[in-house]
Amino acid sequence: MSNLGEFELIDWIREQAGGADHLALGIGDDCAIQKLGPDQDLLISTDLLIEGVHFKREWTTLYNLGRKAAAVNISDIAAMGGAPQSLFLGIGRPAQISDLDMKELLSGFIYETQMHGAVLAGGDSCGSPGPLMLSVTVQGTVATDEAICRQGASYGDAIYVSGTLGDSALALQLLQAGQIPEKSLAERFHLPSPRVELGKFLSARQIATAMLDVSDGLLADLGHILTASEVGAELELDMIPLSAAFQHQQSKQPSIRDLALSGGEDYELVFTSPLKDLAEQTGLTTPVARIGTITQKGGIQIRQADGQLYHCQRAGFDHFA
Amino acid sequence: MSNLGEFELIDWIREQAGGADHLALGIGDDCAIQKLGPDQDLLISTDLLIEGVHFKREWTTLYNLGRKAAAVNISDIAAMGGAPQSLFLGIGRPAQISDLDMKELLSGFIYETQMHGAVLAGGDSCGSPGPLMLSVTVQGTVATDEAICRQGASYGDAIYVSGTLGDSALALQLLQAGQIPEKSLAERFHLPSPRVELGKFLSARQIATAMLDVSDGLLADLGHILTASEVGAELELDMIPLSAAFQHQQSKQPSIRDLALSGGEDYELVFTSPLKDLAEQTGLTTPVARIGTITQKGGIQIRQADGQLYHCQRAGFDHFA
Repeated sequence: MSNLGEFELIDWIREQAGGADHLALGIGDDCAIQKLGPDQDLLISTDLLIEGVHFKREWTTLYNLGRKAAAVNISDIAAMGGAPQSLFLGIGRPAQISDLDMKELLSGFIYETQMHGAVLAGGDSCGSPGPLMLSVTVQGTVATDEAICRQGASYGDAIYVSGTLGDSALALQLLQAGQIPEKSLAERFHLPSPRVELGKFLSARQIATAMLDVSDGLLADLGHILTASEVGAELELDMIPLSAAFQHQQSKQPSIRDLALSGGEDYELVFTSPLKDLAEQTGLTTPVARIGTITQKGGIQIRQADGQLYHCQRAGFDHFA
Repeated sequence: MSNLGEFELIDWIREQAGGADHLALGIGDDCAIQKLGPDQDLLISTDLLIEGVHFKREWTTLYNLGRKAAAVNISDIAAMGGAPQSLFLGIGRPAQISDLDMKELLSGFIYETQMHGAVLAGGDSCGSPGPLMLSVTVQGTVATDEAICRQGASYGDAIYVSGTLGDSALALQLLQAGQIPEKSLAERFHLPSPRVELGKFLSARQIATAMLDVSDGLLADLGHILTASEVGAELELDMIPLSAAFQHQQSKQPSIRDLALSGGEDYELVFTSPLKDLAEQTGLTTPVARIGTITQKGGIQIRQADGQLYHCQRAGFDHFA
């Protein structure tokens, strides 16, 4: 029997699981949304990080691994426009992980958690006969009905992305080739920075119609928004924001361009808005770039400066499994 | 460097993690407690279940494994006197787990979840290069300030336990010896039944001063209550409730008595109360047995019918690691 795709299985689970009065949103977005009270909704998300699938211990310190485990979960709260509040950490601990290792991992996790105004509120640890395994659950809050979901993009909306894309995937590609990425690239891979302030800015002003964080690659994550919103998109290739380090590498190796389109783990926010010049909003402190427009037709078209269509050669990001 | 005990490490983590205004209780009990609103508190708990540590696939169906994964987490909500509400499931999936296997596991998880009035509200799945790994986070609610914690037991309180003890550990002992436990014992091991109704009954009436679920064995879990409450306990050996199947096996093999004192995974509730005859309370539908009294002196003394002290030969429960 061939395996169902991940998304078919999720559809099946959603159907089986059903809904509940206390849930404003169940399975299928960055977070579930639970009604908290008259003013606030609770956002909840859970993630697994498994050694050999999501990280390699020879590439990172346990302190940075702890920071990243917290950061990528906080990013799910940011992607709904919420403020992170409590994190819960489960650790499946192989025998060779010493107490000192545990403290290093936990110190990084707690540092990152506190940096975003949240707190480590509980957890579990047990021996693992296999790889090191981290399970993280994060809770956050957002004003009632102000969470930004993946459906909601409308024809004519502008498409924006924060920061720069492709840096994390480029760092990973260099690591896999046995090279040492330069510091700014390595940090994008090891220490992603969840865009909490931008998410809160957008939800408080209700100026984004749909949003996700870029964890699986721009095309894949924008694709989720399009599917949920039943629209299409046209992107302008030259508007995809690239870091100086990425551009430098690209001048030597033009093929890496596709990493900015389909490389994962950027943890930037991709969102849509009826506003055509968001960068002019007062109080916006995060760099955002307009990269395209929502269309009526399904799918994503990428247009080059000369008007020709561009075809990304690289399939979606699958960590390094 | 020798390893710290689990509890020393938890103390260190608690100190590092600090507190937060929204948390009524952080790390260290069955659940964290978050303030939800004027009337309700939110309870949250997270657990890992790893193949080879917490379960063996040759002993159970994936359907029952799914049920047990939900049940043991719901038990943490029951142990605080709350009502389970939302569950989140992470699955680290080895390559040999087919879609059909996944659906069987999830069907059991969802069945158990719904049986207790809760809903599967989110999750994550990814490949595992090692064992099958489940991570479960559960949320529940309890009326404000009515959660029953592990501290709170007072000198003179009666000590109660629900149901019967030792059945699950006896089933495990038989399985490990290659024998097939009789159905009633096997079900205590494979399909534990969290005592949600009893927990709610006790919290609504505020008649329990401290409570835990028996996951690590009566002596270990009662020990946590005593440490947190800074009291001791005297137990009456003959009052420990035993099932007919357990008594039958004990008549052939007297040494199994200690399984009722230190065998884990019963998922009964152990609690303390100033009421001396709880079984007479109107509306109590769960069998409870009074097994002893809280004393001023630290530690646990177990008294036999002839007045002599009894010494349990068996150390605490450590799953089957």
